[in-house]
Amino acid sequence: MTVSPFTLIERHACCGGEVHFLSHRSETLGLTARVNIFLPEKALAGQTVPAVYVLAGLTCNQDTFLIKSNAIRHAAEHGLALVAPDTSPRGADVAGEDASYDLGTGAGYYVDATADPWAAHYRMGSYVRHELPALIEKHCPVRTEKRGIMGHSMGGMGALSVALGDADAWTTVSAFAPIAAPSQVDWGQKVTSSYFGGHEAEWGQYDPCLLLKGGRTHPGTLLIDQGLDDEFLDRLCPDALEKAAREAGQSLCLRRHKGYDHSYWFVQSFIQDHLKHHAEGLS
Amino acid sequence: MTVSPFTLIERHACCGGEVHFLSHRSETLGLTARVNIFLPEKALAGQTVPAVYVLAGLTCNQDTFLIKSNAIRHAAEHGLALVAPDTSPRGADVAGEDASYDLGTGAGYYVDATADPWAAHYRMGSYVRHELPALIEKHCPVRTEKRGIMGHSMGGMGALSVALGDADAWTTVSAFAPIAAPSQVDWGQKVTSSYFGGHEAEWGQYDPCLLLKGGRTHPGTLLIDQGLDDEFLDRLCPDALEKAAREAGQSLCLRRHKGYDHSYWFVQSFIQDHLKHHAEGLS
Repeated sequence: MTVSPFTLIERHACCGGEVHFLSHRSETLGLTARVNIFLPEKALAGQTVPAVYVLAGLTCNQDTFLIKSNAIRHAAEHGLALVAPDTSPRGADVAGEDASYDLGTGAGYYVDATADPWAAHYRMGSYVRHELPALIEKHCPVRTEKRGIMGHSMGGMGALSVALGDADAWTTVSAFAPIAAPSQVDWGQKVTSSYFGGHEAEWGQYDPCLLLKGGRTHPGTLLIDQGLDDEFLDRLCPDALEKAAREAGQSLCLRRHKGYDHSYWFVQSFIQDHLKHHAEGLS
Repeated sequence: MTVSPFTLIERHACCGGEVHFLSHRSETLGLTARVNIFLPEKALAGQTVPAVYVLAGLTCNQDTFLIKSNAIRHAAEHGLALVAPDTSPRGADVAGEDASYDLGTGAGYYVDATADPWAAHYRMGSYVRHELPALIEKHCPVRTEKRGIMGHSMGGMGALSVALGDADAWTTVSAFAPIAAPSQVDWGQKVTSSYFGGHEAEWGQYDPCLLLKGGRTHPGTLLIDQGLDDEFLDRLCPDALEKAAREAGQSLCLRRHKGYDHSYWFVQSFIQDHLKHHAEGLS
């Protein structure tokens, strides 16, 4: 019998299942990390169920996606678990990490920093790709052979980069308003000069458009929703993603929605289709 | 042509309709008030639709219910508008109004204070019953002859007291974990000694159990969901409400849910049935 590394902070019945607020010591981050999970009724009854990892965007934390996306009802209907990690390490104590919304706390970009002072703890890339799924699958009633991943904005970038980076490990992928070409926009340039110490080449393993250009494709269809009144549209680059996918032969379902912005009001409007997409792929 | 008193602060497309964050000068409160509304697609196309007023609980504001209850998808499906007022006046500048979670800001209890220094502004009772619906129905594409009301906790108490107090004005009513007998519990006793200046008799027009005992019934069925692991169960008094309804001949559908607590994780689990209840009654 293995001892769970997770400390249960809160538990709430929800839609026939339960939401668990957890914390654990992360070896990858070298810090205590928070993660929330939703377990559907079947999982509570002892069956293993497929899990979809949900990655939130800048300024968010492990609570945001589960509270604001309205995903749980649909996950419950499909018998899917949801795993919602934080968006950055917390308590890394890097000077200036709380100073801006788009770098440091709340802005881990699901990458591994390679430059000091960030490299010691800002390793959300390895955390989300390896450590977290391994822990979840070892200690929660979650299937090991199939996983899905989805996210919003910075988290949409994370979902695409994780799934394109290791297509065998992630069966289904979807995103809302992802940062599709981070190396080309100011958000990414800020990451380059800080987390990557100026080494732009690091983006090759994280930038969805660069991954596609480098021949990293996913056998599934990438389901992506994008609002056309998104206030960050210029920096999200959906057209570049579409072009890169076409040239790479990547199956992509990119839906553009007139009138919708970047908020979770947009996310909740189309979340049902995403859970259906994952349920079909993971069943 | 009348000039709208509402200032549009934010507008977000959502589920085929729009969420509007509004502010307006309230004559009743003597202050600027915030209110959020959801207008379904039909309303944006110029039709008038029925509205359901949604009242949040202690510590919340006009954002809480719409963000956390997951009501919008179901309102959209049924073609219902949602109107989400704040839970208290803001900026009344009463000494100590921010000192505790259960009195003052965030804790208007949907009553009219009668004692100084509260009486000048703490008038959420009249605001929700009269001023707000009159303004909404004059300036928004919302039907005037039928309205619904629902709420959570303090807002559940508000919904019941508003609907029982004027059954002709409110066609449908429902509540999640309402404070059913406020005059009997510490929350209400704090209100008595402050807003009511010690006059317990004021509760006669607001306390759901007292209203029922006084013969104020509603022709519809009161739909109420209550979690049995609710951490405030002792102070919510669902059994007293059931008894009062039975003795008054009030139709009540009170559903008790094992394992569910007081949170919006509970609310979102059953919100679909509430919107259906309102849609059927308002159609």
